[in-house]
Amino acid sequence: MYEVEVKVRADHDDVRPTLEARGADRIGTVEQVDTYYDAPHRDFADTDEALRIRREATHGEETATVVTYKGPLLEAESKTREEIETPIHSVEDVDAILSALGFEPAAEVTKRRERWRLDSYLVTLDDVAGLGEFVEVEAETAAEAAIESVREGAYDLLRSLDLDPEEQIRTSYLGLLLADDAE
Amino acid sequence: MYEVEVKVRADHDDVRPTLEARGADRIGTVEQVDTYYDAPHRDFADTDEALRIRREATHGEETATVVTYKGPLLEAESKTREEIETPIHSVEDVDAILSALGFEPAAEVTKRRERWRLDSYLVTLDDVAGLGEFVEVEAETAAEAAIESVREGAYDLLRSLDLDPEEQIRTSYLGLLLADDAE
Repeated sequence: MYEVEVKVRADHDDVRPTLEARGADRIGTVEQVDTYYDAPHRDFADTDEALRIRREATHGEETATVVTYKGPLLEAESKTREEIETPIHSVEDVDAILSALGFEPAAEVTKRRERWRLDSYLVTLDDVAGLGEFVEVEAETAAEAAIESVREGAYDLLRSLDLDPEEQIRTSYLGLLLADDAE
Repeated sequence: MYEVEVKVRADHDDVRPTLEARGADRIGTVEQVDTYYDAPHRDFADTDEALRIRREATHGEETATVVTYKGPLLEAESKTREEIETPIHSVEDVDAILSALGFEPAAEVTKRRERWRLDSYLVTLDDVAGLGEFVEVEAETAAEAAIESVREGAYDLLRSLDLDPEEQIRTSYLGLLLADDAE
């Protein structure tokens, strides 16, 4: 499965009326708090890996807690990477085990995600603490040959929301936050 | 909380009738499969730590899966160590994340544990694959000053089962298996 994602900065109040006018379905809103860990034996920034605990809540009520490992890009073009995700029961215990093994919390990404469905695309309005508002358009395709047309469709969708695909941001929220810190 | 544990080799068929005659309560039997991991950045044998996934089953039906971190001995006398244990949903996913991070399965300990309660002690009849049969007597106490008398009580209990506390084995099952491998 190939995932096509296009992300731009955008004011949500400008985008919502257009989404509604175009008949998009509002799926719902979640809050996500992601804690990224540093490893004691590798620099994840160099190896292009990530280890994260994600706490997800709806209306302040915790709904899911998962630990995720992301491997390095397997293929740059389609942005495919190994991703292993598994639910956990206790953030405190998993954090304590990681800390005992030398993994340390390095950064936190907190955001509110409002999800809409429009045609075959998922449109996500992300409000990221410390970074501001973004709109992300994504779709999956099983056929490598379809990636280009799916991406063009995502660009068209952005344009129909009065957004400019040329302003696409390829850096992750974590990357943007760490870049801010480094300035 | 201090845990007092005394373990000796013993033929279970010799011990069961005595436990019954003494009015011990048979609590139940579980099968445990423990997978111990090596770390990529430390030698756990040197640091006296352990990282383990334990799958527990009753009558072949999986009942619990937990990951456990054991820290080094904090105090030799009372054998106190930090222990962090947390339930997991998927052995495959947690194993895949550990492997991706460089932790490798190093040894497996498989045993059948038959638990009895006698007075304030837990008596466990362990049948360990590759090692044979053991009897373990344990109790917890909150008072450090009570450790000695709790230990004496455990010795008395062993003697009442016709077992000799002088034959106590202080090495873990993992340690015994690894020592066998090294021979």
